Amino acid sequence: MSEIVTAAMVVIGDEILSGRTKDQNIGHLADMMTAVGIDLREVRIVPDDQDAIVEAVNALRSRNTYVFTTGGIGPTHDDITADSIAAAFGVPCDYDPDAYHLLEEHYSRRGIAFSEARKRMARMPKGARHIPNPISVAPGFIIGNVHVMAGVPAIFQAMLDTVIPTLRTGAKLLSVTVPSPLPEGTIGGPLGAVQKAHDQTIIGSYPKYQDGRFWTEIVIRSRSADALEAARGAVEEMLAALAQRD
Amino acid sequence: MSEIVTAAMVVIGDEILSGRTKDQNIGHLADMMTAVGIDLREVRIVPDDQDAIVEAVNALRSRNTYVFTTGGIGPTHDDITADSIAAAFGVPCDYDPDAYHLLEEHYSRRGIAFSEARKRMARMPKGARHIPNPISVAPGFIIGNVHVMAGVPAIFQAMLDTVIPTLRTGAKLLSVTVPSPLPEGTIGGPLGAVQKAHDQTIIGSYPKYQDGRFWTEIVIRSRSADALEAARGAVEEMLAALAQRD
Repeated sequence: MSEIVTAAMVVIGDEILSGRTKDQNIGHLADMMTAVGIDLREVRIVPDDQDAIVEAVNALRSRNTYVFTTGGIGPTHDDITADSIAAAFGVPCDYDPDAYHLLEEHYSRRGIAFSEARKRMARMPKGARHIPNPISVAPGFIIGNVHVMAGVPAIFQAMLDTVIPTLRTGAKLLSVTVPSPLPEGTIGGPLGAVQKAHDQTIIGSYPKYQDGRFWTEIVIRSRSADALEAARGAVEEMLAALAQRD
Repeated sequence: MSEIVTAAMVVIGDEILSGRTKDQNIGHLADMMTAVGIDLREVRIVPDDQDAIVEAVNALRSRNTYVFTTGGIGPTHDDITADSIAAAFGVPCDYDPDAYHLLEEHYSRRGIAFSEARKRMARMPKGARHIPNPISVAPGFIIGNVHVMAGVPAIFQAMLDTVIPTLRTGAKLLSVTVPSPLPEGTIGGPLGAVQKAHDQTIIGSYPKYQDGRFWTEIVIRSRSADALEAARGAVEEMLAALAQRD
């Protein structure tokens, strides 16, 4: 059996907590992690506040294979992610020479001033490695097991695409979905019994409410294809038996 | 100056972390909290795992006025929120007589079996008060400062509507948005100076990327209308000066 690889995410930004911006990155990261067999174990959304960022990053990096952050790496005064990550690791935060030259050239080519604000985007914790930014050049970075990326969804997704192939991935969690026309209250007891009998699987039950009617999606997950198929058969038998009883 | 009232949210469910279900409740709670003047300070998304739920709820309830949870209060084996909240408070979790009778009557009226699974929805930590559920009857509950609600968005929203009028609310945070056609790299320096000069406001800067072009939304927040207007004036003057320079 392959090792279990886990991840956690820290979403940084007052604008998500105030409701002004609706996060689009959590769902994307969750999909990508599932696709490559990494278990996303926890997500925290924290404000633009150094203490809050340090606490979240330190709690999560010590108990997961990887941590991914989004947001707060732009050029303005409220972009404090680089400083906060440096504080979390107890290292200085300063201009990274490679990032500085990259940005200097980029703006010079376009005839745009390399302002103090834009220079801020070259600041990184000492020892960090770049995550390339194919859209707006200013790089994200990696320090330890923490991957620091942009909050703008198009840039976050582009950065994640370059990060994913560098990650250790786990045995992929397989899943099948069995739709049940019966509500959770009807299937709950028997489904619990199926879960007990199939302990190599994780069986989830998701109530759906549509047009005044409840139905259920049953999702079976396992790292073993055989265990998955056995549990699927048991769930289908259970549903057939309940339908006959009606 | 009115007191500051804070909130945190715990979203409970493997299905959010796997990407199968995209959360719709965080943005709604954020909007509602902002509307009534409560600061949403942190959100955590945790799996269907008692230790993870207990840790998140206990960390957040001790340092916020209110905690709101969504998910895991249905009838199936993976619905472990009631037990986990009871464990967080160190109280027993058992059938609540009022909830039991409510559900028993509801199902009896509709000629539906009051199964063991459905009875699970009457379980609550000892001492909890109900949050009514106008859609599917099974109540949420309140214990201490923790409000436990359904994950199905329609039910969560209905429950929250009955909870909101019972909350202490703070001085409402006012906000204005000033769109800037200039990117963050151009306005970042001067905007930082405006922030320093207007310390009764919180000025946020949100990079927007559209059709290959960067622009910025500047959002000014304050609990004082006068401070807000003064900062708005300063931001507009700053943008006008930068535009002239171009």
